[in-house]
Amino acid sequence: MKESPKTIRVGIVGGTGYTGVELLRLLAVHPNVSLRVITSRAEAGNPVEQVFPNLRGHVDTAFSEPNTQALAECDLVFFATPNGTAMQHAPALLDAGCRIIDLAADFRFKDTATWEKWYGMPHACPALLAEAVYGLPEINRQSIRAARIVANPGCYPTAVQLGFLPLIEQGLVEPASLIADAKSGVSGAGRQALLRVSLCEAGESLSTYAVAGHRHLPEILQGLSAIAGHSTELTFVPHLTPMIRGIHATLYARFATNASSVDLQEVFDTRYRNEPFVDVLPPGSHPATNSVRGSNYCRIACHRPQSGQTVVVLSVIDNLGKGAAGQAVQNMNIMFGLEEKTGLDMPALLP
Amino acid sequence: MKESPKTIRVGIVGGTGYTGVELLRLLAVHPNVSLRVITSRAEAGNPVEQVFPNLRGHVDTAFSEPNTQALAECDLVFFATPNGTAMQHAPALLDAGCRIIDLAADFRFKDTATWEKWYGMPHACPALLAEAVYGLPEINRQSIRAARIVANPGCYPTAVQLGFLPLIEQGLVEPASLIADAKSGVSGAGRQALLRVSLCEAGESLSTYAVAGHRHLPEILQGLSAIAGHSTELTFVPHLTPMIRGIHATLYARFATNASSVDLQEVFDTRYRNEPFVDVLPPGSHPATNSVRGSNYCRIACHRPQSGQTVVVLSVIDNLGKGAAGQAVQNMNIMFGLEEKTGLDMPALLP
Amino acid sequence: MKESPKTIRVGIVGGTGYTGVELLRLLAVHPNVSLRVITSRAEAGNPVEQVFPNLRGHVDTAFSEPNTQALAECDLVFFATPNGTAMQHAPALLDAGCRIIDLAADFRFKDTATWEKWYGMPHACPALLAEAVYGLPEINRQSIRAARIVANPGCYPTAVQLGFLPLIEQGLVEPASLIADAKSGVSGAGRQALLRVSLCEAGESLSTYAVAGHRHLPEILQGLSAIAGHSTELTFVPHLTPMIRGIHATLYARFATNASSVDLQEVFDTRYRNEPFVDVLPPGSHPATNSVRGSNYCRIACHRPQSGQTVVVLSVIDNLGKGAAGQAVQNMNIMFGLEEKTGLDMPALLP
Amino acid sequence: MKESPKTIRVGIVGGTGYTGVELLRLLAVHPNVSLRVITSRAEAGNPVEQVFPNLRGHVDTAFSEPNTQALAECDLVFFATPNGTAMQHAPALLDAGCRIIDLAADFRFKDTATWEKWYGMPHACPALLAEAVYGLPEINRQSIRAARIVANPGCYPTAVQLGFLPLIEQGLVEPASLIADAKSGVSGAGRQALLRVSLCEAGESLSTYAVAGHRHLPEILQGLSAIAGHSTELTFVPHLTPMIRGIHATLYARFATNASSVDLQEVFDTRYRNEPFVDVLPPGSHPATNSVRGSNYCRIACHRPQSGQTVVVLSVIDNLGKGAAGQAVQNMNIMFGLEEKTGLDMPALLP
Repeated sequence: MKESPKTIRVGIVGGTGYTGVELLRLLAVHPNVSLRVITSRAEAGNPVEQVFPNLRGHVDTAFSEPNTQALAECDLVFFATPNGTAMQHAPALLDAGCRIIDLAADFRFKDTATWEKWYGMPHACPALLAEAVYGLPEINRQSIRAARIVANPGCYPTAVQLGFLPLIEQGLVEPASLIADAKSGVSGAGRQALLRVSLCEAGESLSTYAVAGHRHLPEILQGLSAIAGHSTELTFVPHLTPMIRGIHATLYARFATNASSVDLQEVFDTRYRNEPFVDVLPPGSHPATNSVRGSNYCRIACHRPQSGQTVVVLSVIDNLGKGAAGQAVQNMNIMFGLEEKTGLDMPALLP
Repeated sequence: MKESPKTIRVGIVGGTGYTGVELLRLLAVHPNVSLRVITSRAEAGNPVEQVFPNLRGHVDTAFSEPNTQALAECDLVFFATPNGTAMQHAPALLDAGCRIIDLAADFRFKDTATWEKWYGMPHACPALLAEAVYGLPEINRQSIRAARIVANPGCYPTAVQLGFLPLIEQGLVEPASLIADAKSGVSGAGRQALLRVSLCEAGESLSTYAVAGHRHLPEILQGLSAIAGHSTELTFVPHLTPMIRGIHATLYARFATNASSVDLQEVFDTRYRNEPFVDVLPPGSHPATNSVRGSNYCRIACHRPQSGQTVVVLSVIDNLGKGAAGQAVQNMNIMFGLEEKTGLDMPALLP
Repeated sequence: MKESPKTIRVGIVGGTGYTGVELLRLLAVHPNVSLRVITSRAEAGNPVEQVFPNLRGHVDTAFSEPNTQALAECDLVFFATPNGTAMQHAPALLDAGCRIIDLAADFRFKDTATWEKWYGMPHACPALLAEAVYGLPEINRQSIRAARIVANPGCYPTAVQLGFLPLIEQGLVEPASLIADAKSGVSGAGRQALLRVSLCEAGESLSTYAVAGHRHLPEILQGLSAIAGHSTELTFVPHLTPMIRGIHATLYARFATNASSVDLQEVFDTRYRNEPFVDVLPPGSHPATNSVRGSNYCRIACHRPQSGQTVVVLSVIDNLGKGAAGQAVQNMNIMFGLEEKTGLDMPALLP
Repeated sequence: MKESPKTIRVGIVGGTGYTGVELLRLLAVHPNVSLRVITSRAEAGNPVEQVFPNLRGHVDTAFSEPNTQALAECDLVFFATPNGTAMQHAPALLDAGCRIIDLAADFRFKDTATWEKWYGMPHACPALLAEAVYGLPEINRQSIRAARIVANPGCYPTAVQLGFLPLIEQGLVEPASLIADAKSGVSGAGRQALLRVSLCEAGESLSTYAVAGHRHLPEILQGLSAIAGHSTELTFVPHLTPMIRGIHATLYARFATNASSVDLQEVFDTRYRNEPFVDVLPPGSHPATNSVRGSNYCRIACHRPQSGQTVVVLSVIDNLGKGAAGQAVQNMNIMFGLEEKTGLDMPALLP
């Protein structure tokens, strides 16, 4: 008799934001997931489909009050909460045998002080930071398999690190020359009633924000420095762009001495050949964010304009897909021994 | 031993438009479909993924020159072509034992003269018009099962007919009072290089078009009159709206005498209770087109403002989903005895 | 010696919303206006240009605390405030000799009970309702000239009334058959931090709202009934559309008996021939909202599809222009004896 | 007796594109302009208002066949034509005493070979390249006054040069480190029926284009090198963004040795203090493109993230305003001795 497919009992804490609804959309069609509980203080008692009409007929659960006991009966708990929430609940859930994927930033940093500086609060369980695995499968696949806590990367950090990764692993660029000019759709700001994300303010306009310092900067630097084996410098400028989904990271670096004869395309092709969700485009390509909308792909193109000393890498993701919920599901698949593409193997929505 | 799942050998003629790419997106993940051939004169020789980068890794076919023999080996051929193409090829394919779903208008009309008047050309095989089944499953499910040719409905006609259907079936409204104020996203105009659909012209603006007479008017009238059992009158005003996908049909009718005490909500609930893709919303709802984006759903709400004599029905679909490719796949599932939701059972993309 | 141009001392109460910034944009270049004071509790002390960066270099005033005395020194005070504010301050300002244009709804109704029912609060100075003039120049130009209080019409009511006006004045349509299917850009919802107007929710989507009853319905009915000389019925369905500015009112009515031989185009042409801001388009036109963006125009086209019994009128305005601030300036010009187009005589911004 | 205002007789060649309609919008309200002739082969005989409905009531001219004699009677001829047209007509018009502002690229380069390489055709009157003045008033105001031919700068070059100008004039940055990551609205691609600018393709997406080499690169390099007094290197990456108007140039450079103690803000404030259309924002600002929409302003902010070695300059313009038609009118004002802000002194349209 064939073994019945494995079913993961899943709980979600939070889930009223955009990463939440995307996670629900993906889990609703995932063949190995049974959604047991989804909590929200604000929406407790309300059916999920009332908050997210696209889930009518797919998710028949209601939001419930946060309840550690109910969550503890799950195999896996996703935190789709504001920063600072997961760290309050993680120790108890781990003790109960749950595994955790945090879509917020609580477990992304190895250095407590860095986290506390950029997130402006004391960390509730710094001891777990060493244990938590940074959930970028392209770097940490092996560690993710056995992890009890996976810190799902930020959206910008995913696009930027995947773009720089092959260059830095191979020592091809000057580590002090890195620039990431990153453009995000408005959903990156979350599902919030904010004037600056209203269609009237954010539509038909484009601007930077947080040029002085964005929280994703230290996250990216931690990652790139770990890859490089030494510290790196990065100028990171995020832009708010008039679209709902998508990140386009335009990355600049100067070739290291003696590295300028390298075949860039081959470096990227080789590095990502076996990655199910990183797609290196042919030479001369200009990936558009709509080529990954609703999917878990990162598409990358590399250029060397005028055969000069500057390499330009273009890296696009859906900030809610590979930049959040999609990557979280990918991490879940890895943690539970499933085929990595399970539930994620669908093309982007175009147009 | 369990029977292995049935596989339908599928061919697509055309397929370089938006209905084509949506059809490919859906078929790529359909468990019972094997895509054998996709033809395009303009793109012959080019890989599909080059034209539609979202399909990279999902569709590894190249477009080929139209070739009746290759198509004839398929169980089912979709025509995602301009009007007037399918009728040229249908007879030969039927003779070869293929079944056909035409996403264009060639087989939507029972009356040849009406078709020729609105589409401005002689019909190549008027004899087949009687045989062809109009592919609105909510009306013709039984006939679709055995059909050799299914005429997939137009996008506006799907939204408008599903909205009026319960009212007209029950004789609740005056047949001469019908108004359909319909708003479409720009993808309804097809994948074409036209000034009027450029972002600069169609973005941040809204206008009507074809108020004097749109080709979908006779198609809707044919459907509504068939339901009513007598002729109906309709004022149909289509609008071009600054979004990519979605149709919102706002429908108006006056209650027939003695019908005004009916429970509208119950009429709709009852009619669509068993329909997998028509979702009647609770009283007082205002469905938004983004609640069906990328899905095959039609969501409907009915209102009776100020308890007056006018019923207002709100009907939303994705013009490329239930309005085109999604409905085509639903028809395929019915024709080949598959569970009707196969390959279509996913939530809409929100946000 | 030529008389120096007349200068109107202007005060603005409120002015931190979108009607406010549009009013400031227009007044900043109006040759006969001197902006004396602009009040806002929330922004008191902040330079206007800090809130509205487009006004840098054009408005060097700062917002101040509301102060009746400072306002009383103005010739004219605009209220660009939430409903219910102007009525608190109007009596004192009138006593001080100021004239008032209220861009909110406080003085739009003749019947106190109707206002109180739809706006949910007692009226502070019902005695002034009789005196206040409804500021639709195309109807009330003469009364506006001498008015102490002008109630600037709502955005939907402007577009809908101007579209129906010639038909109703001439008794050409059945007064019980009126339907206004109105589509508004998101700025109609004001400058507010609301989830439903965020780019992620309102972008790429379209929906109705308030189908059960919108506050502009009684305002339109009051106007249409006054024109008709008897009561009229209207089904009014507002839609939120994914654009910043613009209203497109699609109006439907049935011809009155014996009226169906009328030359619609001539009716409209004649009625509006001398109106500086109502532009009747040639037969067969489909006005787009971007043809009036940033301007004070209302463009109108009339149709009679299939020579049937239903007349379709298309009426477009910029909701912040002719639908709010532009019309307010037009009213000011009339009140102060200026050429009516002064400061408003510029083309719309296209694209 | 006061001298009556000077009137410039103006002709426009081309004018059916977006720079054309913007030029017409500005000239229609310019107090010193009399539009005499506007030519277009494609639209000859058609009223301007038929092509551009926003100009109804403002421009009553019809397009005419190109006619050198009619143009020769003008004081000034604008070329709003594709590249390669103005150079065909310039010599004859100059001989006739006309002055010329070319909004295309024909006269932007001093070096004929560079022009011919990037524009792919022989230059028709290379001798005039030396005479033509590059119409960036912030650099060449004096030469513009007396110029017979003004080469109106490209949109990207305007935003990029104004952003780098103070840094390069003062030698504050390494000339080989320049990066311009530039984002443009879709109107920058012109008024063309192209698939890639359709709302379905360009909406809700963001991508680069021409990373290998864009025609504006040599134009910018020519300008920056002239300012620097020596050659500079630039990596220029243009992006197509889902909005109609606006350019946001995000500029990066490394401080030159010993320059890092400079007060960046003061450098920019000082340089642009007397410029009527360059607005240096306060420290820490993030200019949005909608703050300049429809206006002739360039707004600039400078940053030094983490007090590091990289300076980040943010420069926004309306590509059709300061990036094309607005700047052309500014140049006209300078050429004809008018106050420089005449006809341009209006705030941007926000929202």
